Amino acid sequence: MSLHEEMLAMGDKAVAACRALAQLSSRRKNSILEAMAAEIEARRAGIQEANTRDMEAGRVAGLSGALLDRLLLNDARIEGMVKGLRNVVVLKDPVGTRISRWIRPNGLVIQKIRVPIGVIAIIYESRPNVTADAASLCIKTGNAVILRGGKEAVHSNAAIAAAMQEGGAKKGLPAGSIQLVQTADRDAVRELVQMEGRVDLAIPRGGEGLIRAVAEQARVPVIKHYKGVCHVYVDESADAEMALNIIENAKCQRPGVCNAIEKVLVHEKIAATFLPRMAERLAARKVELRGDAASRAIAPSMKEAVESDWTEEYLDLILAVRVVANVKAAADHINRYGSRHSDAIVAQSEAAQKLFVQEVDSATVYVNASTRFTDGGEFGMGAEIGISTDKLHARGPMGLEELTTYKYVILGNGQVRE
Amino acid sequence: MSLHEEMLAMGDKAVAACRALAQLSSRRKNSILEAMAAEIEARRAGIQEANTRDMEAGRVAGLSGALLDRLLLNDARIEGMVKGLRNVVVLKDPVGTRISRWIRPNGLVIQKIRVPIGVIAIIYESRPNVTADAASLCIKTGNAVILRGGKEAVHSNAAIAAAMQEGGAKKGLPAGSIQLVQTADRDAVRELVQMEGRVDLAIPRGGEGLIRAVAEQARVPVIKHYKGVCHVYVDESADAEMALNIIENAKCQRPGVCNAIEKVLVHEKIAATFLPRMAERLAARKVELRGDAASRAIAPSMKEAVESDWTEEYLDLILAVRVVANVKAAADHINRYGSRHSDAIVAQSEAAQKLFVQEVDSATVYVNASTRFTDGGEFGMGAEIGISTDKLHARGPMGLEELTTYKYVILGNGQVRE
Repeated sequence: MSLHEEMLAMGDKAVAACRALAQLSSRRKNSILEAMAAEIEARRAGIQEANTRDMEAGRVAGLSGALLDRLLLNDARIEGMVKGLRNVVVLKDPVGTRISRWIRPNGLVIQKIRVPIGVIAIIYESRPNVTADAASLCIKTGNAVILRGGKEAVHSNAAIAAAMQEGGAKKGLPAGSIQLVQTADRDAVRELVQMEGRVDLAIPRGGEGLIRAVAEQARVPVIKHYKGVCHVYVDESADAEMALNIIENAKCQRPGVCNAIEKVLVHEKIAATFLPRMAERLAARKVELRGDAASRAIAPSMKEAVESDWTEEYLDLILAVRVVANVKAAADHINRYGSRHSDAIVAQSEAAQKLFVQEVDSATVYVNASTRFTDGGEFGMGAEIGISTDKLHARGPMGLEELTTYKYVILGNGQVRE
Repeated sequence: MSLHEEMLAMGDKAVAACRALAQLSSRRKNSILEAMAAEIEARRAGIQEANTRDMEAGRVAGLSGALLDRLLLNDARIEGMVKGLRNVVVLKDPVGTRISRWIRPNGLVIQKIRVPIGVIAIIYESRPNVTADAASLCIKTGNAVILRGGKEAVHSNAAIAAAMQEGGAKKGLPAGSIQLVQTADRDAVRELVQMEGRVDLAIPRGGEGLIRAVAEQARVPVIKHYKGVCHVYVDESADAEMALNIIENAKCQRPGVCNAIEKVLVHEKIAATFLPRMAERLAARKVELRGDAASRAIAPSMKEAVESDWTEEYLDLILAVRVVANVKAAADHINRYGSRHSDAIVAQSEAAQKLFVQEVDSATVYVNASTRFTDGGEFGMGAEIGISTDKLHARGPMGLEELTTYKYVILGNGQVRE
């Protein structure tokens, strides 16, 4: 069987599974998820054995320490996966909810009902825990899932997927609901994201390279974020201490994540007093500052920012700084150079807040808060399958609702069109 | 300037326009729409002159009578465009609506606010009235629009677009809000739907060939429907007279549209009595019936249906007929061969209704009503930019709300993440 045929067969199995999954009650899906968790727990030793094989192969292949760390499944991480699955059990199932209902003059009752999307492809890198996280959210919402993890984690992922499939099957998980693409052939991703009619949505998770490759090859809808180039704009009306706290938190609390800030924009009227305080505060946290000419004239310790600094996602203790003329200029900068992810204004002026919120075209716009809250858990969604900087279907953190769509169900008593 | 550069420049203008459009009040947008309508009215003679050039070129090129009819802009059709624009004025503007709001334990106020999508590309065929319809819905929802109509209508479209641009400008329509791609170069469509970052959504409207071409070339999100292969399933519990009325209406009231039915599925227990009545009723309407073996055994006047009959969209007075074992078999047939558009069950049994509604994976599922109601106007949306058989973002008829997305606006008072 060619790769193409193999992938089509996988797609057919997923489609059949998603039809069956869509009919399951919340209670049934929850008992399946609980069985999946229990099976991962029961197979801990086997999963760790598989992980050891991946770790050894990774060391031979010369993977970096950071990559090896992501790959590792120690006791705590397996416990984390199991807890994650049980956490999904207690979340509210959005499927079957009536979104709206209205009655037409001819008596037709029009209802918009939440239903599963169908078949979701998840393409990710080397973290094996994504295998359990992503599958659990898809099953909870009645979607079949096709998983394609990084090749470095192939044995770990296979062991986790087998535990979920076989554990879930004990409680009636339809065959084909959770499938893992195991071939090393890189063309499998292209095949996967071109299966119109078999795959309803692809969600790539990982570095920008992976996501661009998926987006360029895809024929099915993709929800993604390339990167997080997030900003804090400090208005002339800002409470300076609040601004410093927010900037420090948004930059330093976890610099390697997409909702950490990479840029600070400061209103020219307060730059002379604010920038030296900010430089001092961030120097204590070992943040490298890269300023435009106006910033460096005030705080000469800053390195020089070049054009590429405005678009770069450092994911590190580096921050680019620019002085701007007003809120409008800040919003224009963010719309031009940002990534539509998360951007904040610190301001006491309501007019400035309102203008910023209206003008900035990002998934999440903050007033007087750290951008680090862009996260399904922090939003109260209970779980997150990813963050979208696209504009269609889902924007910002994606929880269970974002893994559903709707259909119109229309009740009549013989109505025909005149 | 190359075509590529030309299209990018158009994209840049649209992006600048959409930023300005997003800031306009509903009142301002309405006065712009009214000015657009008035200008079309004022320029009726000029628009008809342009249309005459298209009609003459069309006759020389040997266009069919049907195509020439679509192309024609007589007085009534221009009046229809003007009325259509004024109809959009009175619709409720969804932009700025708060979809939801909740407060987190740390005091963050999370709000989901409806906003314009940004830049929308509409690719369509020879009907020049689409130029006005599509532009008005985009402007009402604060989106910039790039229009690419059929080459047969190039002069008509240019005249209509100029009237809208110049009329709108009198009331503050930002430059670049409505742009028309006028080059004859077919590559313009490819360029248009690959402008990630400049075009947020592409909506192709027309025949299956056009839509497939757009979907295959696109890198930006596309919302579309390839075709409408719609079904009526007549359950054993059906009121036969109601079923006949619905079938006759859904097939004959306007056979050339996507929500007309192409197939009837009949429960085996009632086939022997129902099919002869149906054959008689539809013979009077000159409908050609193509049946499977079981249907033809009962009603031998039917032609023989072949495999391709189950997927074909006739758009004509032809109907394929199949006898099925039960509701489940009907749903399986529809999910396998249908186009996820509009499908109906005629049944008195609530159990049968419920099963059908649950199992059929279509944008619009009807109980005891004609599929011909799948239409923005019939749904009470007031207007329609198209119908989606995709599952992401919008399903079924797309009105004004479906031309918007949302952003999260989060209000804090200095919150940082622990």
